[in-house]
Amino acid sequence: MNKQEDSGARLIIAAGEASPDLYYRTRFLTPDPYIYLEIQSERIILVNDLEIDRARKESIASQVLPTRDWEKKLSASGKSPSAINIVSAFLEEKKILDIQVPFDFPLGYADGLRKNGFNVTASAGPFFPERAFKSRDEARQIRTVQIGVEESLREIVRILKESNIRDGLIHYGGTVLTSETVKSILKKELIGKNLLGEHTIVAGGEQACDPHMEGEGPLPAHLPIVFDIFPHHESTRYFADMTRTLFKGSVKPIHRKLYETVLEAQEKAISLARPEEESRKLHQSVVDVFEARGYRTGEKNGRMEGFFHGTGHGVGLEIHEAPRVGKTGELLKEGHVITVEPGLYYPGIGGVRIEDMLYITDTGFENLTTFPKDWGTVAIP
Amino acid sequence: MNKQEDSGARLIIAAGEASPDLYYRTRFLTPDPYIYLEIQSERIILVNDLEIDRARKESIASQVLPTRDWEKKLSASGKSPSAINIVSAFLEEKKILDIQVPFDFPLGYADGLRKNGFNVTASAGPFFPERAFKSRDEARQIRTVQIGVEESLREIVRILKESNIRDGLIHYGGTVLTSETVKSILKKELIGKNLLGEHTIVAGGEQACDPHMEGEGPLPAHLPIVFDIFPHHESTRYFADMTRTLFKGSVKPIHRKLYETVLEAQEKAISLARPEEESRKLHQSVVDVFEARGYRTGEKNGRMEGFFHGTGHGVGLEIHEAPRVGKTGELLKEGHVITVEPGLYYPGIGGVRIEDMLYITDTGFENLTTFPKDWGTVAIP
Repeated sequence: MNKQEDSGARLIIAAGEASPDLYYRTRFLTPDPYIYLEIQSERIILVNDLEIDRARKESIASQVLPTRDWEKKLSASGKSPSAINIVSAFLEEKKILDIQVPFDFPLGYADGLRKNGFNVTASAGPFFPERAFKSRDEARQIRTVQIGVEESLREIVRILKESNIRDGLIHYGGTVLTSETVKSILKKELIGKNLLGEHTIVAGGEQACDPHMEGEGPLPAHLPIVFDIFPHHESTRYFADMTRTLFKGSVKPIHRKLYETVLEAQEKAISLARPEEESRKLHQSVVDVFEARGYRTGEKNGRMEGFFHGTGHGVGLEIHEAPRVGKTGELLKEGHVITVEPGLYYPGIGGVRIEDMLYITDTGFENLTTFPKDWGTVAIP
Repeated sequence: MNKQEDSGARLIIAAGEASPDLYYRTRFLTPDPYIYLEIQSERIILVNDLEIDRARKESIASQVLPTRDWEKKLSASGKSPSAINIVSAFLEEKKILDIQVPFDFPLGYADGLRKNGFNVTASAGPFFPERAFKSRDEARQIRTVQIGVEESLREIVRILKESNIRDGLIHYGGTVLTSETVKSILKKELIGKNLLGEHTIVAGGEQACDPHMEGEGPLPAHLPIVFDIFPHHESTRYFADMTRTLFKGSVKPIHRKLYETVLEAQEKAISLARPEEESRKLHQSVVDVFEARGYRTGEKNGRMEGFFHGTGHGVGLEIHEAPRVGKTGELLKEGHVITVEPGLYYPGIGGVRIEDMLYITDTGFENLTTFPKDWGTVAIP
């Protein structure tokens, strides 16, 4: 074998929508799986008749080939025209035996290819580690989504300003304001900007003490309400992620201290963000602030309380991607987009989380989040 | 080993949102992966601290266990607290060696478990074949989504009625109506009903000749416009799927014949739907009608034209699931929900597709789609 035949192939079989890795390399979105092969610098899409015209128009692959040709050849030789056999026939012709696939490559395909004699190796880490390093253009796409998130939350602030409080509940337009209503308004605001906001969190009072609880029922006045909004753009597929904690009514001293402690911890962690810094130091600084201020983390009455999640995560074509910002952190690098989102949760008292998104630059960072965190904004009388 | 030890385990490691199989068994939605084990009739979720309270509240699993306990044990014995090692430790304790996983189970996990001594077998077909057989309640969930789809398209019909035609384009509220505007209105209508409509198709004229083209730019008057709407419900996760082809303005004889031929083929195929019928017969009946009416399928000038996709597919927790309705069909069974969606596409002329969703009953079918297909509805003067 010559050098070219030795070098092997990278393979993804997935729906464009379901695989950020595949979309990253092809920019071709499909609801159904297609075959993608990368051989040296060639990026090859194998696709059925239904998608081939669109693939040729929309994808950035260097070649778009119809699976039909291979299906015919396989059927003629009495073989099933399956994806496994199409890939096998294609790679046999190129004399390639070694196939690299993503960690999440379907086992069914892998075992089929192995049976056909190929060496299939799953990537231990990210398949395209370069996805973690966002170009200026990618950061701009993320910021575009973030602008939509902020405009949408401003609409909610406007509604809270126009609302009244009766019997501890928030009334707007003649009815009690619920998590469901606010989420519905947020989602409509987002969709008008081509942003899909699944699992938007609007959780107040006790519900805010469970960090992933989406929230339901009437929103409480005089208690922290957590808004965690993390949509992706329908076309560019980039995510943004922001959390704010708002109050409608008066703010009790216990909640004021909770909020200010979370904000202090967040600002401390943000101030540490720069290339070549260990991301776990950001997390540790949050833990240190909470401990110094007397906020305890642990199990109580069978439930977790305090600060029991990571400080942040990478954001890009996935809502959670590299790098991690937690107790097992990573080295921050130029191009990383990370969230910094400490929170404190105490059943019986309430939950507060504040989250910004940072773009790590060559000298430090740009905060992609511009929504204010001051009392003048977050406490709505 | 006794009988219980022999019987093995079923395993899924996936995000609740990303795996319809996992959600089907747990009804627990998460953005991040968690571990699910099925041992005999026990359904066990292993989940981190962040999700455990919600898992206990929302899931239908018989046991919800914290991964934390296993992480501690593994760390104490110097092992990495990875998902692979957590599953391994859990199954070793139960003396289980055989693991069944879905076809799309991540290869990285499978190879890790194999290295730890387990026999991991990927399912060749659907992991839970019973997912294809919808209960009355599931059919009702799908119909609920479909009602939302129909109400949303009615809003577009209303807008088209209020629109005027100038220079071959459709004008509404002082501006030219575009695919983007109509899709945005549709998506807002849908989100108001908690329906997420990704990749809604609003494609007119030449764009409608590519069945998966989503559509962009001004919509043409006097030409067929394809509306393919297939959202899922944010909470129940069930999909619905409907296509209608509408006209604004006058309908030329060539398009009238095209539409009536597609409708004839669709009605013929629908009339064949019943339990124990081969679904490929529905597809063949569509092909036969098109051939009898002189509509040719094949490549022309490097593009496909005619009828070059399957007649339909199952719909449920996935937009495309079992059974297939195409040239390689399956036996229809009571409980199947299938689409019947023939189409004809001729570059230079236009594209027409009409799609209904059927629930196969013990004696025949119920059409879950009630949006009209008559000229009085689809041709808007």
